[in-house]
Amino acid sequence: MIAKMVLERVMQVAAHLTNSAVKVAHPFDPLNEAEIAKAVSIVRKEHQELFFNAVTLWEPRKAEMMAWLAAPETAMRPHRVADVVCIGKGSKVYDGVVDLTENKIISWELTDGVQPLISMEDLQIVETVVRKDPKVIEQCGIIGIPPEDMHKVYCDPWTVGYDERFGNKVRLQQALMYYRPHIDDSQYTYPLDFCPIFNADTHEIIHIDIPKVRRPLNTAPPSNYHAAAIQAEGGFRTDLKPISITQPEGVSFKVTGREISWVNWKLHVGFNYREGIVLNNITFTDKGVERPVFWRMSLAEMVVPYGNPEHPHQRKHAFDLGEYGGGYMTNSLALGCDCKGAIHYMDADFVNRAGNPTSIKKAICIHEEDAGILFKHTDFRDDSVTVTRARKLIVSHVFTAANYEYCVYWQFHLDGTIQLEIKLTGILNTYAMNPGEDTLGWGTEVYPGVNAHNHQHLFCLRLDPNVDGPNNTILQVDAERGEGEVGSATNPYGNAFYAKKTKLETPETSKCDYNGSTSRTWDIANESKLNPYSKKPVSYKLVSREVPSLLPREGSLVWKRAGFARHAVHVTKYSDAQIHPAGRHVPQTSGEPSAGLPAWIEEDPKANIVNTDVVLWHTFGLTHFPAPEDYPVMPAEPMTVMLRPRNFFERNPCLDIPPSYSSSPSGKGTVKAADSTSKLV
Amino acid sequence: MIAKMVLERVMQVAAHLTNSAVKVAHPFDPLNEAEIAKAVSIVRKEHQELFFNAVTLWEPRKAEMMAWLAAPETAMRPHRVADVVCIGKGSKVYDGVVDLTENKIISWELTDGVQPLISMEDLQIVETVVRKDPKVIEQCGIIGIPPEDMHKVYCDPWTVGYDERFGNKVRLQQALMYYRPHIDDSQYTYPLDFCPIFNADTHEIIHIDIPKVRRPLNTAPPSNYHAAAIQAEGGFRTDLKPISITQPEGVSFKVTGREISWVNWKLHVGFNYREGIVLNNITFTDKGVERPVFWRMSLAEMVVPYGNPEHPHQRKHAFDLGEYGGGYMTNSLALGCDCKGAIHYMDADFVNRAGNPTSIKKAICIHEEDAGILFKHTDFRDDSVTVTRARKLIVSHVFTAANYEYCVYWQFHLDGTIQLEIKLTGILNTYAMNPGEDTLGWGTEVYPGVNAHNHQHLFCLRLDPNVDGPNNTILQVDAERGEGEVGSATNPYGNAFYAKKTKLETPETSKCDYNGSTSRTWDIANESKLNPYSKKPVSYKLVSREVPSLLPREGSLVWKRAGFARHAVHVTKYSDAQIHPAGRHVPQTSGEPSAGLPAWIEEDPKANIVNTDVVLWHTFGLTHFPAPEDYPVMPAEPMTVMLRPRNFFERNPCLDIPPSYSSSPSGKGTVKAADSTSKLV
Repeated sequence: MIAKMVLERVMQVAAHLTNSAVKVAHPFDPLNEAEIAKAVSIVRKEHQELFFNAVTLWEPRKAEMMAWLAAPETAMRPHRVADVVCIGKGSKVYDGVVDLTENKIISWELTDGVQPLISMEDLQIVETVVRKDPKVIEQCGIIGIPPEDMHKVYCDPWTVGYDERFGNKVRLQQALMYYRPHIDDSQYTYPLDFCPIFNADTHEIIHIDIPKVRRPLNTAPPSNYHAAAIQAEGGFRTDLKPISITQPEGVSFKVTGREISWVNWKLHVGFNYREGIVLNNITFTDKGVERPVFWRMSLAEMVVPYGNPEHPHQRKHAFDLGEYGGGYMTNSLALGCDCKGAIHYMDADFVNRAGNPTSIKKAICIHEEDAGILFKHTDFRDDSVTVTRARKLIVSHVFTAANYEYCVYWQFHLDGTIQLEIKLTGILNTYAMNPGEDTLGWGTEVYPGVNAHNHQHLFCLRLDPNVDGPNNTILQVDAERGEGEVGSATNPYGNAFYAKKTKLETPETSKCDYNGSTSRTWDIANESKLNPYSKKPVSYKLVSREVPSLLPREGSLVWKRAGFARHAVHVTKYSDAQIHPAGRHVPQTSGEPSAGLPAWIEEDPKANIVNTDVVLWHTFGLTHFPAPEDYPVMPAEPMTVMLRPRNFFERNPCLDIPPSYSSSPSGKGTVKAADSTSKLV
Repeated sequence: MIAKMVLERVMQVAAHLTNSAVKVAHPFDPLNEAEIAKAVSIVRKEHQELFFNAVTLWEPRKAEMMAWLAAPETAMRPHRVADVVCIGKGSKVYDGVVDLTENKIISWELTDGVQPLISMEDLQIVETVVRKDPKVIEQCGIIGIPPEDMHKVYCDPWTVGYDERFGNKVRLQQALMYYRPHIDDSQYTYPLDFCPIFNADTHEIIHIDIPKVRRPLNTAPPSNYHAAAIQAEGGFRTDLKPISITQPEGVSFKVTGREISWVNWKLHVGFNYREGIVLNNITFTDKGVERPVFWRMSLAEMVVPYGNPEHPHQRKHAFDLGEYGGGYMTNSLALGCDCKGAIHYMDADFVNRAGNPTSIKKAICIHEEDAGILFKHTDFRDDSVTVTRARKLIVSHVFTAANYEYCVYWQFHLDGTIQLEIKLTGILNTYAMNPGEDTLGWGTEVYPGVNAHNHQHLFCLRLDPNVDGPNNTILQVDAERGEGEVGSATNPYGNAFYAKKTKLETPETSKCDYNGSTSRTWDIANESKLNPYSKKPVSYKLVSREVPSLLPREGSLVWKRAGFARHAVHVTKYSDAQIHPAGRHVPQTSGEPSAGLPAWIEEDPKANIVNTDVVLWHTFGLTHFPAPEDYPVMPAEPMTVMLRPRNFFERNPCLDIPPSYSSSPSGKGTVKAADSTSKLV
């Protein structure tokens, strides 16, 4: 009955939203609200009793898309196709593909033994159930929370990760429990010591993990950071003068649909519920020629393993993208956008559980920023000088994974560099501790009674390169000493060094770890095209310096489930189906066998990955040992990965950027920009 | 006679500049023009026939200075003292110390077998001499430059490094030779293949190194970047709209003399001819208490080894600070300052060769910059959010080392982090190559006929910590797996990990290399003071991720001369005399024995460095394999080192920064900054 009503409503929405939007969508565009409604209505015709987990763009196949881009007038325009995930009673999961151009279901499968990600709606349900559960109320009583205070009990529901006692036939969440003395108090100061397990199918608490040593409710005063709290303890500083950043003449980029052009860059900005921002068909115009650089680029997965060995903390290793969705958790920047200047926003459209389209307004922020010196040189003989100022284009979003915030900035520089910067902020995941309890080194007491456990943030960057075409080769590059000891004929002074390049030839031998002492980087090269001056292949270099080892041991649950994180680099032959390196459905995977990247490599370990269409999977991140200054809210910690053109251009590609000041030895041709003079104080 | 005239002029200058400036100088202030003139006049009374290489502040001894700072009213004010280096005929070097408060020479020594750094004046002389030298004219003829074109011949004079054929009794420079078809053409496109050796004492060319294989003058067209050249090839882009950064209400920092206070930070900005910026007595006010953090911080040395083993390229390994002076080479930012907003400048005063005070106007730039998100958190339940914007205070200078530019930014963040960012720009050092010549992997043909050799930039950061007092301990910190295999009692799930801390106990055992796979960092801890919550010592953590190995081999010339670069970290017990880790006078040191850091460690290898006054020497940098996009001028390549408070504060120390937006679950106390809303486009 409910399903029927939902279906009718969806059909209304679909009817209201004109089909014209569908017709003009770029093949890379995310599904819009009308398309989502249409997909739902097509599914509903055949399958009524289902909840929707995801309706997202089934991306055009690469060959088809490349053909269309090459000849949009003559080649077949890729169909608009929806990738659908539905959940039925009994934790049944259906994977479907729906052709929106032809209005039909292409495939529909009941997929056994998997659990799709936990949506925001799934999360919201748990707290209500937990508060009413008698066994939870009992446990709260044991640690000092009376039944009448259950409205002060909160939980951050996490996927259960994988718990061998419960397997993956039933859809589960674990509820990390907290308490708020007052609705405005941060609950992370009051973690509770037990952990209920929630059955998402029946909406029941099926188990509670209770530690051997109990930890009563924290008695420390609240530690808050919101405005009222700061006002109460003396207020905000008044000595900071405004820094105004404005673009009185507007921005320098153009947006056509979701295609952006800025200086020499062009790219398409996509977005989906899993990866968040997806950048497609990135090109750089070099002396009038539009040269492809990357076909697709995204943060494809991440894992946050925690380092406390005590049960059940091993379950804390969130795959924030695969288990919750970086898109679903994206902040609306309508309030609290924190980019200055002139901003272009894009919304993000999704399906909700009931099958209705929903939208996060201002999900993506696109803007320019000043970036200091681009280049400078002074001739010491005569002080003639050229100094040119840099700027960058930033495509960003911020997502909130329960306690943590991830701020993701895709940055395009004038010199051809692409930089992914991530800032980690938000609040530490916390656990209860008794007064005087030893953290045993697995965490830090960041505030009385608050134990913040050691953890890693490991991101998997999926790079589908297109460096002057799809046929690329990946080489590991190490700075190495030349052969021969001091005094030898080849190295008489011992000063020789060079870039040692190791070609990655097959998926099984492509697994590389990081080596800081050789300043290891990776070249993404097109061996069929040499730079006319250097005679080296045109390439982009992956420069990444925050590359910790995966600290959970070989054979551990995290190691098994997060196969992508075992090495800094893996390379695979391109396949349309391989997007998610920890698997299509991540929650409750056991890792036996490991889904995603390890499975793909095992399928064809000796495939040729030289001078062919390849994908580079790069895992980077950081290891976080918390400290009190991270609490009650963490100052942002930045992390960065760069892709730099090497032997790609014939020369510095940004010499035509107007200088702030340029004079020559002869004194001829001096140029001084209007805004080059800074105001003195 | 000349000396007498110089002396008279100096006395006039000294008389003109009132003594009041001397009296009010802060003990950390660099010598001003009056003090320099005074020092020269005192020296001249006893030593006439000398040229001046340096007159700089002989910094107050630490014990004396700490006593005075603690009780400025009662303790003795440290004298103003000048550290003087003079050069006499026959490459004789004199080191002197002159007390300006008592108007007397304290010490005066003839130092044998050393050569002080090469000043800008020393450099300027060489080109004139080279152009007139018959043997140079002959060599130019051989590679295709007729005698009438000698005015088109240029040279970048470098110190000779060390050449065993010439030793260090005679002051030498090597002339890296170039040619300019037109005065405005970049000479780096036309490197000449031979290398004259210049005797700075006699102003003669004493030798020319001529390669076995000759390389005639490059015939490629010029490759230029100055405004006239870009105009000629089509002009500058016109599609970039201005980004205006203004501070309509002025800056948020206060400058008193050379002391700066900004938000919770206080520091003194010094400057000298060697290190450039020196930051002293850095403190952070925490809940009303001014807590010391660092006593002194500077870039103390650097070395740029080149990796081509062919003679005489092994001599190319410039110690840009110790051999030329980061202060002496500093740009005047009067033109071509490239910081935006409201700027406070400081000048830099030096002595010239003749003994007159000289000044670089606007040598140091001090300004604030916006720095994106400081912290943010959204409650997923109700979308209540707090987002606060960051800014930083930047003290910067730019210096030009012949072809290269180093942009040095000392940055202070609101959260207590100190960040040193360096941007490398300028022009590659280039060498001639014949058409079709193989670079053998030691360099890259970045433009026809232009070989840019592989090189490293290795900087030595000298950190004199004062973390809640001078008695500090350095610990190496590695992210390590917990003991026990998967399934063991201690690590049942294999997920345990922790921060393994290794205390550095003596100078000889303090030598640490970098380890990227354990995300190695170093704690600068005060073991006598524990954080009340975490019970861990208050500390600052050195986070540095660009830490290549020194690639010249053990026993090589660079390895011997640049002892500081052998390891990422060395720790010594504090000594007033130990500032320059490659020695006081660097040019023409043989490295036998190694001066500076290796010598100091050898003097007392087993000294206690635990919980005492220590200095941490950190070498970081990058290895540069050139590419055509680095030419004819390099887009700036950034590098960064961070010092982050860990267990230093009881909580996030920047909660009192006004938020852009803050709302609470209850809806009470919503705050919205005037500038939080970005303009839509």
